[in-house]
Amino acid sequence: METLFYVADLFGVAVFAITGALMAGRKSMDLFGVLVMAVVTALGGGTLRDVILDNHPVSWIRDDGYIIVASLAAIGTVLWVRVTRPIHETGLLVSDAFGLAVFTVIGTEVALQHQVPVSTALIMGVMTGVAGGVIRDVLCNEIPLIFQKEIYATACLAGSLAFILLREMGTPHWVDTGLAMLTVLLIRLAAIRWHLALPRFHLLDLDKSSDQPRG
Amino acid sequence: METLFYVADLFGVAVFAITGALMAGRKSMDLFGVLVMAVVTALGGGTLRDVILDNHPVSWIRDDGYIIVASLAAIGTVLWVRVTRPIHETGLLVSDAFGLAVFTVIGTEVALQHQVPVSTALIMGVMTGVAGGVIRDVLCNEIPLIFQKEIYATACLAGSLAFILLREMGTPHWVDTGLAMLTVLLIRLAAIRWHLALPRFHLLDLDKSSDQPRG
Amino acid sequence: METLFYVADLFGVAVFAITGALMAGRKSMDLFGVLVMAVVTALGGGTLRDVILDNHPVSWIRDDGYIIVASLAAIGTVLWVRVTRPIHETGLLVSDAFGLAVFTVIGTEVALQHQVPVSTALIMGVMTGVAGGVIRDVLCNEIPLIFQKEIYATACLAGSLAFILLREMGTPHWVDTGLAMLTVLLIRLAAIRWHLALPRFHLLDLDKSSDQPRG
Repeated sequence: METLFYVADLFGVAVFAITGALMAGRKSMDLFGVLVMAVVTALGGGTLRDVILDNHPVSWIRDDGYIIVASLAAIGTVLWVRVTRPIHETGLLVSDAFGLAVFTVIGTEVALQHQVPVSTALIMGVMTGVAGGVIRDVLCNEIPLIFQKEIYATACLAGSLAFILLREMGTPHWVDTGLAMLTVLLIRLAAIRWHLALPRFHLLDLDKSSDQPRG
Repeated sequence: METLFYVADLFGVAVFAITGALMAGRKSMDLFGVLVMAVVTALGGGTLRDVILDNHPVSWIRDDGYIIVASLAAIGTVLWVRVTRPIHETGLLVSDAFGLAVFTVIGTEVALQHQVPVSTALIMGVMTGVAGGVIRDVLCNEIPLIFQKEIYATACLAGSLAFILLREMGTPHWVDTGLAMLTVLLIRLAAIRWHLALPRFHLLDLDKSSDQPRG
Repeated sequence: METLFYVADLFGVAVFAITGALMAGRKSMDLFGVLVMAVVTALGGGTLRDVILDNHPVSWIRDDGYIIVASLAAIGTVLWVRVTRPIHETGLLVSDAFGLAVFTVIGTEVALQHQVPVSTALIMGVMTGVAGGVIRDVLCNEIPLIFQKEIYATACLAGSLAFILLREMGTPHWVDTGLAMLTVLLIRLAAIRWHLALPRFHLLDLDKSSDQPRG
């Protein structure tokens, strides 16, 4: 079970690294930029969670499996795109949803081990799932996608909540984990399939004069 | 006194969360984005301070009051804008100045408890006051407002310095706190009233060729 | 030797602070913005490394030499530009390369003291050298220069690797340090001289519709 989960974790790292590498390609970064984007997207969320929770050592500090998998995924992406241009967009989205599910559950579990209130555990679950992508978008000078597009973080929120409730009920570990991951996966896949999105909050600029000029 | 200060702290959290939610609205973010912006603006400064000072647990990790207040403020802002469009700009600016005063004093005090030199205590006071807003602006793809607009961080700097000096002189705690907060408030309100700004540093691009293209 | 290295470290801080202040000037920031940019560029990389490694206290928290040098460098830059406009671009680039060399070696050494695998030590060496500049660029709403321009981080990577290998071989400390710094310096100076760059990864937007609107 432990091993299975470790493999799932590394799978999530690889998928997130690929999305980072692709974004780097869209910005025409050099190979170093591609590597950084891959590593930051894959490991940024967990690192932020561990640093804020004071949960040391941060996972990848002692186990070089994470960095190696993320780097290989980045190099693999560049080679793949060079050789066979098309990327299977749907396959990538589904893999990403799976990685999201794994990361959310891990994040929530780590937080619960620190005896935190429910609100903090939820935030840590969501943060582990989405913060890597947020840092990726900020480094690429974009407003983070997840603040504007179809349901993404909400899937993490639901999965994290499911995990906490099941834990509270004392179900076996594989049941908590399985059902919580399924929750994230199903919501996310439904959101992709039917373009479900949260309502947006539009606010006109009331006070144009206080607005700063763009760089 | 403790309780009074805790309430003032939560008031600061609420006000900062409102400015985060409004910025999210200006960028047409969805409801999740609004929540994230509110929480990050309200708690980002204190979190950064605690992580750098190794002052664990970070305030909101164990006490869910912070997250709840920030979330309610965000939801309240959306509802408020939906129902009665106008936002009382001046009221918001004055509340923000008050929140800034509270955060600056808390940040300086936490730093002093770690026996740091004066320069570090000053930075921690200013960071607690302004870093949440800086992260908010970066996530919204804007150059942080406080690097360009009227006096804001300078008010924190003065208040933080006043707090350190009064502490050194051994005045009672409520005097340090009160006078330091008043310092921040008065400078900030004066800056708003008379549009006081620091001089700017204009530098022409000497070397256009090394400039990168915009994303 | 210790003293020599401390002076070199402060020299690196001063040079990095100057590049931060110049960038602030290009964005017409006010004097507070100039100070923040200087401090963040000079100390951001080391701070991030220490926070992730749980290596507390962060260098500048207890020793106010760092903040003072960075602030003086920022003020000096503004005065210099006001009085004699031209900045010696080449001199700055060479100094920057020297600072990069010092920071890379320090970062790698700190990581090795925490008994981490080689991949982590390399990342920490590179991060100490380049993360300050990345944060500077993000705060200025630019895609970090080092992801797109001529060889920079790769010089850190090579120097960090050289340091680790020499350490493994048990050469005297001044030899490790000297040769590793020389590695960074020579690669970086060659990159500046002959405009060496890594290949870029260009990826056309396959899926324009999923692209978010700017600002």
